[in-house]
Amino acid sequence: MSSLPAVRIGLLGLGTVGGGTITVLRRNADVISRRAGRSIEVVAASARDISKPRAVDLAGIELHADPMDLVRRDDIDVIVELIGGTDPTKALVVAALESGKHVVTANKALIALHGNEVFEAAHRSGTMVAFEAAVAGSIPVIKAVREALSGNRVEWLAGIINGTCNYILTAMSDEGRDFGEVLEEAQALGYAEADPSFDIDGVDAAHKLTILAATAFGVPLQFDRVYVEGIRDISRADVAYAQRLGYRIKHIGIARQQKDGIELRVHPTLLPERQMLANVDGVMNAVMIEADAAGPTLYYGAGAGAEPTASAVVADIVDVVRALTGDPENRVPHLAFQPDALAAQPILDMAAVGTSYYLRLSVVDEPGVLAHVTRILGERGISIEAILQQESEAGASAVPVIILTHGVVENAMNDAVVEIEKLEQVDKKVVRIRMEPLA
Amino acid sequence: MSSLPAVRIGLLGLGTVGGGTITVLRRNADVISRRAGRSIEVVAASARDISKPRAVDLAGIELHADPMDLVRRDDIDVIVELIGGTDPTKALVVAALESGKHVVTANKALIALHGNEVFEAAHRSGTMVAFEAAVAGSIPVIKAVREALSGNRVEWLAGIINGTCNYILTAMSDEGRDFGEVLEEAQALGYAEADPSFDIDGVDAAHKLTILAATAFGVPLQFDRVYVEGIRDISRADVAYAQRLGYRIKHIGIARQQKDGIELRVHPTLLPERQMLANVDGVMNAVMIEADAAGPTLYYGAGAGAEPTASAVVADIVDVVRALTGDPENRVPHLAFQPDALAAQPILDMAAVGTSYYLRLSVVDEPGVLAHVTRILGERGISIEAILQQESEAGASAVPVIILTHGVVENAMNDAVVEIEKLEQVDKKVVRIRMEPLA
Repeated sequence: MSSLPAVRIGLLGLGTVGGGTITVLRRNADVISRRAGRSIEVVAASARDISKPRAVDLAGIELHADPMDLVRRDDIDVIVELIGGTDPTKALVVAALESGKHVVTANKALIALHGNEVFEAAHRSGTMVAFEAAVAGSIPVIKAVREALSGNRVEWLAGIINGTCNYILTAMSDEGRDFGEVLEEAQALGYAEADPSFDIDGVDAAHKLTILAATAFGVPLQFDRVYVEGIRDISRADVAYAQRLGYRIKHIGIARQQKDGIELRVHPTLLPERQMLANVDGVMNAVMIEADAAGPTLYYGAGAGAEPTASAVVADIVDVVRALTGDPENRVPHLAFQPDALAAQPILDMAAVGTSYYLRLSVVDEPGVLAHVTRILGERGISIEAILQQESEAGASAVPVIILTHGVVENAMNDAVVEIEKLEQVDKKVVRIRMEPLA
Repeated sequence: MSSLPAVRIGLLGLGTVGGGTITVLRRNADVISRRAGRSIEVVAASARDISKPRAVDLAGIELHADPMDLVRRDDIDVIVELIGGTDPTKALVVAALESGKHVVTANKALIALHGNEVFEAAHRSGTMVAFEAAVAGSIPVIKAVREALSGNRVEWLAGIINGTCNYILTAMSDEGRDFGEVLEEAQALGYAEADPSFDIDGVDAAHKLTILAATAFGVPLQFDRVYVEGIRDISRADVAYAQRLGYRIKHIGIARQQKDGIELRVHPTLLPERQMLANVDGVMNAVMIEADAAGPTLYYGAGAGAEPTASAVVADIVDVVRALTGDPENRVPHLAFQPDALAAQPILDMAAVGTSYYLRLSVVDEPGVLAHVTRILGERGISIEAILQQESEAGASAVPVIILTHGVVENAMNDAVVEIEKLEQVDKKVVRIRMEPLA
């Protein structure tokens, strides 16, 4: 691996995402340095109250009560801004850039409202600003729009980009409950703030839509032109009626290129229930982008939370590190990990892999057959989740039996199937298809 | 904008994707150069039969019958390999890299089987190889794994990564048809090859899974260790039984980190019907990745086709161009477009935006009310998609009427709602929620 010195990070803010960033950088230090080609270390952090006890271990991290003191240090490569809001973050970020430090930020308000000034400061000093974490948490949608779709003319994009709204609307829909009741629950669970208006009135979504629209259409950031409606007026009755008509109500941000300009709007919307976006539930976020060459693409994931947001923050740090050390060896490695950091691991034999199973047997319709089959499965530790026995069709001597099993290693299932096929009441080859809960 | 000379592309192969790449580069030349900071020109191409008439206009593109002649030219910056297969593409790609040209390829077999040699050639010559188009067409899943998740330990990934299999299984499920019949239809529609075994026996998916697993887990490429099963044995009956039990059968590739090694397998699988992947239908692809910090993220889009694949090819070209001109001004621009290439566009007034509408009225349950309402809508050119009239609850004097409209500009709807609220049979504020088909 590279013998380059560690990249030194200064962290502004030790709240939820700040703690998550320290945790992720530490826990995954090995894979991160194998990908980045250098190790990454948080050497200093700032917090309003530096003596406050925190869940994350701060050993080895120098603490500053004044964030500007941290920004002014000359031994920091990258400032990670996780304070939020625009004051004093704008001054801090501009000062960091002007002193030659790169900046990674999760601050959507800062970018949506003052991005142009921030980017100009970066431009003047030849530094980088990265802000993937500002939009839709863990989802690399800024990367998708800025890089993956660079050959396209974007036609429109639509996103579920506020987890609080989506949690409330999902609960109203799944459980037939009222807005106010679900909001209270969301506040108790930490999915909504004590003052929830920033989320449920659509301001947060409008910040994110502002950023997405600028990157998609090459227009300046213009938050004040977004039409904004929240979800306070959505009633349980409307959610139910929409469902009866084949729709789900979601709070979405839409930006669409029209002939004479751009639509930019955030409001509750009925979506057809088979639409991918209609199936994004709970606190999850997703953005669908329709582009002229790619067609529709969709990006889905957790839109908030300590570690999902930290995931985007760390990805931005690694992007900065790879660009910093921009010789051919330090570009994005072909296989993600640096060539000398690939590590062989055994590929497991299929016989040792465990999955659940769907089995279909064709059996003679007589008492006792199922008892034989379930005994064979039971003896091999294979437990049954569901059995579906079809009635025999008129004149047919055999009936189909469908069995769903819980997890089992292939070996045991192979063995069981051989035994079942030996039963004289089972008259055909057993059909077997694996099942994955994907969890 | 930049005064750098155009980047000169040599295209190997003028088939479907080659034609799509030329089309996309030309049609979107303006937005592409605004993003890349330079213009990108296809100056030469190779094809087996250079005299064959083609749909795409080849004016200004010099044609070579021998691809090696094109590779050996000294006036080409980037070779785009769209021939497919490993012979002679491996020799062509290695020769291109050794002569200092960067390579963009959509060739999954080449990367899965010979990636290590290709990357070594790039390493020796300090050139770049990009292969986003090799996996899942338009979907930036290589970028997601290599860049967006670089802070994570990937736990597992699972993908619907063969459009032919997914088309067949979706039709079997939606229409209750047999495998053989749907396969024939897919061949007629061009979704399956005349010799379909490469797709339906799982080889193509295994190539892609090999590449995804290497980038996710930092292990070498090892195609020969993938367990592979296709979909020939899936019967209509199994699809139907699975559906009755709440599952859908999909052909997926799975790579999972276990304590003692890595599972690497491609086979038909039952997925719970509410799972996002279970709702990826037709020729669409999607990959879900579970990572320790980000949690689950999913990437969805067209997995094949001329322009979707060209979208990924062009994105790779732009990545190469941005890295080539790697001074601060030519990194990925903050807002995707180069700072001096942002272009203001009017943000449309909401009154001029058109959407469909959900209306809920509370009306006195007497004859003729609906006639008034529909007249008011009709006079403003608002046509009705559906009306749902609820029966009045015992004792209630008013009943809810739900109306879904076709598209209408906000202005007309505002006006109609004012008129409807004036009707004396309508006794409450009209509830209105916008609807989006997202198409």
